[in-house]
Amino acid sequence: MLLLAAAAIAGLAPAAPAAARAGREPLPSWNEGPAKRAILDFVSRATREGSPDRVRPEARVAVFDNDGTLWAEKPAYVQAQFVVDRVRALAPEHPEWREKEPFASILAGRPADALADQRALVEAVMATHAGMTTEEFDAVVRSWIATARNPKTGRLHTEMVYQPMLEVLDLLRAKGFRVFVVSGGGIDFMRPWAEEVYGIPPERIVGSAIETRYETREGQPVVARQPALAFVDDGPGKPVGIQRHAGRRPLAAFGNSDGDFEMLEWTTSGPGARLGVLVRHTDAEREWAYDRESPVGRLDKALAAAPERGWVVVDMKRDWRAIHPPRRSARR
Amino acid sequence: MLLLAAAAIAGLAPAAPAAARAGREPLPSWNEGPAKRAILDFVSRATREGSPDRVRPEARVAVFDNDGTLWAEKPAYVQAQFVVDRVRALAPEHPEWREKEPFASILAGRPADALADQRALVEAVMATHAGMTTEEFDAVVRSWIATARNPKTGRLHTEMVYQPMLEVLDLLRAKGFRVFVVSGGGIDFMRPWAEEVYGIPPERIVGSAIETRYETREGQPVVARQPALAFVDDGPGKPVGIQRHAGRRPLAAFGNSDGDFEMLEWTTSGPGARLGVLVRHTDAEREWAYDRESPVGRLDKALAAAPERGWVVVDMKRDWRAIHPPRRSARR
Repeated sequence: MLLLAAAAIAGLAPAAPAAARAGREPLPSWNEGPAKRAILDFVSRATREGSPDRVRPEARVAVFDNDGTLWAEKPAYVQAQFVVDRVRALAPEHPEWREKEPFASILAGRPADALADQRALVEAVMATHAGMTTEEFDAVVRSWIATARNPKTGRLHTEMVYQPMLEVLDLLRAKGFRVFVVSGGGIDFMRPWAEEVYGIPPERIVGSAIETRYETREGQPVVARQPALAFVDDGPGKPVGIQRHAGRRPLAAFGNSDGDFEMLEWTTSGPGARLGVLVRHTDAEREWAYDRESPVGRLDKALAAAPERGWVVVDMKRDWRAIHPPRRSARR
Repeated sequence: MLLLAAAAIAGLAPAAPAAARAGREPLPSWNEGPAKRAILDFVSRATREGSPDRVRPEARVAVFDNDGTLWAEKPAYVQAQFVVDRVRALAPEHPEWREKEPFASILAGRPADALADQRALVEAVMATHAGMTTEEFDAVVRSWIATARNPKTGRLHTEMVYQPMLEVLDLLRAKGFRVFVVSGGGIDFMRPWAEEVYGIPPERIVGSAIETRYETREGQPVVARQPALAFVDDGPGKPVGIQRHAGRRPLAAFGNSDGDFEMLEWTTSGPGARLGVLVRHTDAEREWAYDRESPVGRLDKALAAAPERGWVVVDMKRDWRAIHPPRRSARR
């Protein structure tokens, strides 16, 4: 099922770089306007032969938040839905969860109460996911994501990615950029599907993490997931995570919430061609509309800072011709 | 100077993949024998169309220890020489170092006493390198490596890489592998030069690390290096580091010391085509000869385990036609 969905999405991906190479118009799902123009201008400044701000290919790094920037985060973070399903699946082995938050609320059918805060969410994810080996966890995520659907739209989560952002990934790659996902979500929750869905390999995924330990189980060496938070990749953690994994300050950063503030700040404070982009969810009809008041994906401080910092604010309703890739899976 | 040296080394690199693609003999600096045969057999099993053990390209990951595996580690670790030079350079600002080990021994001209143990070395590196920003440290390393030479051979460190291993890197890349360096040394010590010298980008470098923090200095946002060890990428730390950065168990692992034992163990315990290689330093004439008794690069437990685990032991004297790339810089 995942392969089907991924193939459907991947089927779109080659079009854009090919188009870019062939000189056809890039970013076809973007309406003409300041946001599209700013992205194209940045790419041109950073890569065009003869540009005074041209950057050598090795230093062309761009980073993307995941939830709300590359795929939908409403009605709840995808990983929150994964936590809910895992808590339900594992509840028989954990009678103590009936009295302990956030598990009690989840089991009582009120997951939104329990998981609205991203840090509580991350901790709940870690608590439900420690104990197994990294390879076992990988298999659990693959199995879940293959069939899990957005509760509002009924589409696979892997189809709830943003088509205009896939086109930005493709454009940047066609221009020699290495693109990274830098998410507050769990690094090992994203890796199992990000390569098929975004074309981004595991070493270019940055995220929150739990401790791991090398040990022997049933005579086999494994890397085992420990019940301890190792790293929270949110807010000021994002530049730290980027430095740790990518080893460089990016040239371009795309986010959608205050958790991306420091990532955009660090990125756009460097010299030369820089790009900071905030995706603003303004389309209540085709998607969701939220910013300052939303517990998930709150966009307040970063939005206020955008004008003076020169950050581009994408208005989804105005700037995006399409939101998601076409429903390919229905054709089969 | 680094650019010169790197260009010289890089000048060799394209030859091998081109040769491999053209059907010419790969691994030209390897003598015929069981080690070369085992590497070629593994590559064929893992990648040949129709092979029952063929692995999809996304999962083709190979890992290489650095010191003693990709470049020389005698008469001392390169990073130890860097520490010595940094301690001398910074000593005027640190009068307390005259009475504190390992600094006192370094300043007294006995660096070998102070830095023989790899963990002491890593800590000394961290102690001498905290305080500055990641970008400042990057610049210090680039500047140093551009002129630093092996005290015995007089060659640039970046020329003390092993030509046969560069050919293995090239062969694996030509066959769709992503190659990672996984070193006990500092991750941020390797990143500034590994891309030019090995063709390996920063996100494919795994190593020991100190803590970092996002903060503002003189009005500018920076990632600042903290005086605290965050991760030791040695022994059982290597599988943990690989999982953290590469996100997968490798198919092939190359090392040369007991610090690589767990990396080889984890790698070769997986199903299907697997390769574990130990580079044994047996050539006192062209390089150095050492194993069980050496404080640097001790190879004892892993060597004893090699036969029953099916690990390939490379005998440098017998198996390698050349040790280092030709002296190209002399031509200019």
